[in-house]
Amino acid sequence: MTGLRTDLYELRMAASYLRRGMTDRATFSLFARRLPPRRGFLVAAGLAEALTFLEEFAFEADDLAYLRDTVGFDRSTLAALSALRFTGDVRAVPEGRVVFADEPLLEVTAPIAEAQLVETGVLNLITFHTTIASKAARCRLAAGGAQLIDFAYRRTHGIEAGAAVARASAIAGFAATSDVEAARRYGLTPSGTMAHSYVEAFLDERSAFRAFAADFPTNPIFLVDTYDTPAGVRAAVDVITELGLTGPLGVRLDSGDLAALARETRAILDGAGLTGAQIVASGSLDEDVIAALVSAGAPIDGYGVGTKMGVSYDAPSLDSAYKLVAVGDRPVLKLSPGKATLPGPKQVFRDPSGASGDVVGLRDEPAPRGREPVLVPVMRDGRRLDPVDPAGAVRAARSRFDADLRWLPEPARRLADPESLAATVSPALTALHERVAAEVRRGGTY
Amino acid sequence: MTGLRTDLYELRMAASYLRRGMTDRATFSLFARRLPPRRGFLVAAGLAEALTFLEEFAFEADDLAYLRDTVGFDRSTLAALSALRFTGDVRAVPEGRVVFADEPLLEVTAPIAEAQLVETGVLNLITFHTTIASKAARCRLAAGGAQLIDFAYRRTHGIEAGAAVARASAIAGFAATSDVEAARRYGLTPSGTMAHSYVEAFLDERSAFRAFAADFPTNPIFLVDTYDTPAGVRAAVDVITELGLTGPLGVRLDSGDLAALARETRAILDGAGLTGAQIVASGSLDEDVIAALVSAGAPIDGYGVGTKMGVSYDAPSLDSAYKLVAVGDRPVLKLSPGKATLPGPKQVFRDPSGASGDVVGLRDEPAPRGREPVLVPVMRDGRRLDPVDPAGAVRAARSRFDADLRWLPEPARRLADPESLAATVSPALTALHERVAAEVRRGGTY
Repeated sequence: MTGLRTDLYELRMAASYLRRGMTDRATFSLFARRLPPRRGFLVAAGLAEALTFLEEFAFEADDLAYLRDTVGFDRSTLAALSALRFTGDVRAVPEGRVVFADEPLLEVTAPIAEAQLVETGVLNLITFHTTIASKAARCRLAAGGAQLIDFAYRRTHGIEAGAAVARASAIAGFAATSDVEAARRYGLTPSGTMAHSYVEAFLDERSAFRAFAADFPTNPIFLVDTYDTPAGVRAAVDVITELGLTGPLGVRLDSGDLAALARETRAILDGAGLTGAQIVASGSLDEDVIAALVSAGAPIDGYGVGTKMGVSYDAPSLDSAYKLVAVGDRPVLKLSPGKATLPGPKQVFRDPSGASGDVVGLRDEPAPRGREPVLVPVMRDGRRLDPVDPAGAVRAARSRFDADLRWLPEPARRLADPESLAATVSPALTALHERVAAEVRRGGTY
Repeated sequence: MTGLRTDLYELRMAASYLRRGMTDRATFSLFARRLPPRRGFLVAAGLAEALTFLEEFAFEADDLAYLRDTVGFDRSTLAALSALRFTGDVRAVPEGRVVFADEPLLEVTAPIAEAQLVETGVLNLITFHTTIASKAARCRLAAGGAQLIDFAYRRTHGIEAGAAVARASAIAGFAATSDVEAARRYGLTPSGTMAHSYVEAFLDERSAFRAFAADFPTNPIFLVDTYDTPAGVRAAVDVITELGLTGPLGVRLDSGDLAALARETRAILDGAGLTGAQIVASGSLDEDVIAALVSAGAPIDGYGVGTKMGVSYDAPSLDSAYKLVAVGDRPVLKLSPGKATLPGPKQVFRDPSGASGDVVGLRDEPAPRGREPVLVPVMRDGRRLDPVDPAGAVRAARSRFDADLRWLPEPARRLADPESLAATVSPALTALHERVAAEVRRGGTY
């Protein structure tokens, strides 16, 4: 993988550090400055992908030639970059855990040039995956017991983003994905049967349903809204009866008044004795539409959720940051208006009882009584501590989210007007902040 | 590249078509059902990437093994998929051209199984790139003559999305990108100097500026808001004076009241005789913030635009569709509420004078007098008609957008409350639609 997967300024800064022999280990802290609107919590995700990025970070010959010819890097800088690998340590919130604003999701400690160069990739991956997992979690909260299926692939931000969305939504509890490559890569359940085009490719709806059921008798889901939904349901019932299908099966509604159509569909299916037939709904769904359908008592067994989840439509990114907090033993901060940072490597201390919010403290201070640290070591000397296991990582993350969802207080879970569990700052971190800020204000040197 | 880069239902439908010997050539039409809020037009983009996807589409041995073991495909289906390549024809709106709702951006004509299998990838790429190019175009309209730089990489939806955003924003007229890999791949100008962490890595701001200017004397841009912006500007001026820098250079403002700080910064720079020094602004910019700064007369020479453009924050996707419009010689449509489609392969006929909106007609009808067709052939028998030229394709697309921007009437260009140029439907297409819809309503067979 090319080492050019970074912003140019990271390369310039790294080159300057290397040239000047600035090899101090620096710590950068990655966190969300605030939660997006209508979010009471975030779901940490993307760590496994970020660690892979760190392990693969290296400059190849053609990268160095580009930097020489286009950016004008000199021979000694190129030699230093050629040898550079990420050799640092990483501590992070495990994937699937719930986090809040101003809490580090991840901290990188490495020689400053390395820690700087990987900023773009690590920030990108953690921000994106966390954004999607957090949106998918809202769909899960809305759906109650109904199954959720990721249908987002066709409108995610690129092909690779489709796989990331499948993964992040699986962490948040989605049961399946339409993205076959992602299903293979992450051990997910692939899902999907037919589109409107299939129905239209035959001379009539019944012929299409009959052909599909013949070819895929195991759990066919008939798409019934191509021309007229109730007529489509009756056509599906006729084909099911005619072919004597007895296994799991169902119909999908993709347009119209889903609550009313689901009721009418249920009545037709039940009237034909198909009480076990499932109803799946899709079509521009998001957590609000799902919550309204659930609250209307619509008899829907599963929801295919696409674009609105896959791009996190109402909040497609996070106000995330990857900020320098220490150089060597020296804690640093910035005072930029609205973007001030707290100095020093940090830890998040959580109350397992859920009775009080998190405490953000210094990495090395003792945990306050009854609290547990949330960040754990995940990489040492550039090597991940857990072996690569794409499917296992998703399963473990999903279990963590299940547990944290039970822990999460109701006000933070609400879809509308949630109240986040505000983190407080430990006395030790507060004291450090005051000391460093005063030193900076006194003269910018200390 | 794996052929699993698709939705499962595409694979099931394709398998069914192959099994049944349904080899008719089908035409699918890709279009936006409506423009996102606050958009008066779209900028077509992503075609070159979509054509590459089509050329690479193929199933490898491990893909087939997965489909056998997980989805239960039989031996003859796997054999058929193993031999399958995309052998179809594609007509499309060239990248960089302006398009409106309900106009095909692209039409695929191929044996129905092939045309179906590639839906997910083609729809994904065209939707994503067009979404971003259209958002970036709004930034360009806002910026007047100021330069725009893509700073989005750190918060795009994944690493690959970063390159796509760099490319799409370049088509819309951005002058440079922070994404070095994208700059190399697409022949763009890489841009970037220093972050706050660089300033903090030194014991004071002056030391940081001095070190940076020594290492990169060509066009240094000093980031001046780490601690206190006016003091930062004065520190930059001191270093510029001290080192006798005379080439192009400037400062970057990344926080606070950008209009007021830009004026204060300009005054400090001018007072020191640095009237040629540039002021670059960044920090949560979008077209609205840029327009407000321009309208306030803020002396800003360039804007670094990041996340808000790179995820198209206010409208992160399009209501796009890839719909079957013909099977063999038979035009088809669907009547689903809110998602009805017009039958048959189409063409868009445009009035070069801009006096009237586009006409959407049948592919093979003659162009109405004085109008020009917008869709052109881009792939025949699975081979692209233009050779692969990543940099050339971006340059050509950017020229097309420049030309279309001059053509685009003012109401469609407005940032707020734009009025799109509504396309009308040709009499021939209207007649076909009425005939096919009546036939479907009469009995679903014809």
